[in-house]
Amino acid sequence: MSTSSNVVKKNKEGGLEGIIAGNSEICEVGVGSHGEHSLHYRGYTIEDLASNASFEEVAWLLLRGKLPNKNELATYKEKLRKLRDLPSTCKHILEEIPAHAHMLDVMRTGCSVLGNLEPESKKHDQYAVADRLIACFSSFFLYWYKFHHQKKRADLNSNEDTTAGHILRVLHEKTPNELQKQALNATLILYAEHEFNASTFTVRTIASTLSDFYSAICGGIGALKGPLHGGANEEAIILIQKFMTPEDAENGIKQMLNEKKLVMGFGHRVYKVVDPRSTFVKAWANKLSIDSKDKHLYPIANRIEEVMWDSKHLFPNLDFYSALVFYYLNIPTNMFTPLFATSRISGWSAHLMEQRANNRLIRPLANYIGPSLQKWIPLEKR
Amino acid sequence: MSTSSNVVKKNKEGGLEGIIAGNSEICEVGVGSHGEHSLHYRGYTIEDLASNASFEEVAWLLLRGKLPNKNELATYKEKLRKLRDLPSTCKHILEEIPAHAHMLDVMRTGCSVLGNLEPESKKHDQYAVADRLIACFSSFFLYWYKFHHQKKRADLNSNEDTTAGHILRVLHEKTPNELQKQALNATLILYAEHEFNASTFTVRTIASTLSDFYSAICGGIGALKGPLHGGANEEAIILIQKFMTPEDAENGIKQMLNEKKLVMGFGHRVYKVVDPRSTFVKAWANKLSIDSKDKHLYPIANRIEEVMWDSKHLFPNLDFYSALVFYYLNIPTNMFTPLFATSRISGWSAHLMEQRANNRLIRPLANYIGPSLQKWIPLEKR
Repeated sequence: MSTSSNVVKKNKEGGLEGIIAGNSEICEVGVGSHGEHSLHYRGYTIEDLASNASFEEVAWLLLRGKLPNKNELATYKEKLRKLRDLPSTCKHILEEIPAHAHMLDVMRTGCSVLGNLEPESKKHDQYAVADRLIACFSSFFLYWYKFHHQKKRADLNSNEDTTAGHILRVLHEKTPNELQKQALNATLILYAEHEFNASTFTVRTIASTLSDFYSAICGGIGALKGPLHGGANEEAIILIQKFMTPEDAENGIKQMLNEKKLVMGFGHRVYKVVDPRSTFVKAWANKLSIDSKDKHLYPIANRIEEVMWDSKHLFPNLDFYSALVFYYLNIPTNMFTPLFATSRISGWSAHLMEQRANNRLIRPLANYIGPSLQKWIPLEKR
Repeated sequence: MSTSSNVVKKNKEGGLEGIIAGNSEICEVGVGSHGEHSLHYRGYTIEDLASNASFEEVAWLLLRGKLPNKNELATYKEKLRKLRDLPSTCKHILEEIPAHAHMLDVMRTGCSVLGNLEPESKKHDQYAVADRLIACFSSFFLYWYKFHHQKKRADLNSNEDTTAGHILRVLHEKTPNELQKQALNATLILYAEHEFNASTFTVRTIASTLSDFYSAICGGIGALKGPLHGGANEEAIILIQKFMTPEDAENGIKQMLNEKKLVMGFGHRVYKVVDPRSTFVKAWANKLSIDSKDKHLYPIANRIEEVMWDSKHLFPNLDFYSALVFYYLNIPTNMFTPLFATSRISGWSAHLMEQRANNRLIRPLANYIGPSLQKWIPLEKR
């Protein structure tokens, strides 16, 4: 009846699938066997948070473990508002990075540079670094993007008191409407935290050597970039935009499945029946499609969802419909994963602090399957 | 007789201690119960490699799976020699990073910048990126260090055909002697690879999302920085230099142990009796102490080793005596961990490629121990 041999076998296959890597008080991913999947941050349901909260409120909750009261939230929003601008050295460096760079590479570099300019210290402690990064994470790519692609030096200060409003205002240089702000706010909340996903686990592994805050976050950005993780939302919109009609999409997806091609934005390592975040983000995509009078992409996305379920019993994950939300907000495609990062910095920061509070060096073992003992042959005789 | 509950319990405590996280053909850490600890790279013993090989030969072995022949090694050394210089944009950026920065933060930033300037592509494939980084990893910190601390723009080209010789020449601006080159070469070999240590596991986790080469390596640099990992060699020399005599060291260490302070450079997560690399690096430290006519630090280090063994049965790991080797080579203390990285880039690259060749997203689970379901309270009522 021992399951230990199965556990070891699974581990050897890599990926740590099904392996518990530690305790956490931050996020509960509930996976029921009959599809009753749920997601809680610090005990609050994702439904309550995405319907009622602001992203700043959720960031506070993740980092401080409880919801802020009215005064605390107002003070926090004002604090973040003042921390959005970047040091001039950081801006110079962003100007030196080429226009053809990948925006996640730009973010990773911006974050790494800031780690040199404003290093973690007793005075600039982990909460200060976390708040700074939550406030200025979008600044790295917004500044770089506008400099290289619109030939402008962006003003990174705005009077918008929410992260969502600020990003839309700086990007589009006009006041976003309420619907747009709400849609981006809700999407940021849904992206904020998701247990021991690959980027968060990277952050915790780096933190476990007692390295500094920025080093851990740079690792998280790097992990998020991959198409099997954050990169999926960019892949999703590229896919959706390939098709002209729902029928065209149906045929195209079926062909992809026949050719055993991976369709990005579907399925999940942990969820097996539904992604509880998907319902929300889909509703926002629908509202925005109506608001923008677009009758083109939303029906195509819907048909792709139907085909994937009928053919493979695969469901859309958060990345699929969030791609559509970002599209309707006129956000450039290569900014989709950076926006994911702009939200997830809150979850990463919470996990980094939790790892430090009860640290144990993360250092697993490998199962050696390489060559047996080799006799040394001097260079001359090879 | 089931051990699965123990396994799960261990996992919950974090650190993945004793957990096999995947297969690997690169490195075998042999841990016998009676102290017969061993370390093999691709089947070759660390004794053979450290006694006979060049660092470039070992890098080739790690990346390509077999030893190079004479022609291959000569071509490879010449290739690396030509890849040491940095693009001018990268140099400008290194000049913008403050003089008080941590050198690992400088390396992480330099590597991140290079990822924007020379991104991975079909033309610039993973072997090209690996060789480029193996060649220029020391350039990031040597250029930055000489610019800010010696007010010079370093010439990063040298005719030295070994990494060890090149580093010593650029740093000291004179021809290193054979003993110095050999000591650094052997130390680089000992640092090149060590299975699923925290930085390598970070690299593999980032690579498992199918992110790019530089993103993974930036994560590795960040993890190595921590004092529970690469940072230990800097801590070790700071400790050794605190004492004036062996007697002074004995008393000081005993006092630290009484106060339950951590003595860096001792013990190991995997090795339990001896670190097989330590014998070699200690012999080099001894040779260099004789060559430099220093009768001061080596005896102090020896006494610390004795006290740690007698009091705690803890043995010096690679970081303890390598700190002394670097010291005798007149290398500034804050360059010790960067030199570790300059070597480990070879092992990281090999693991990154191995991860990609048989990829599985690294995504473990957390054991949720946080608050139960919380009722949402509107902001106004908090």
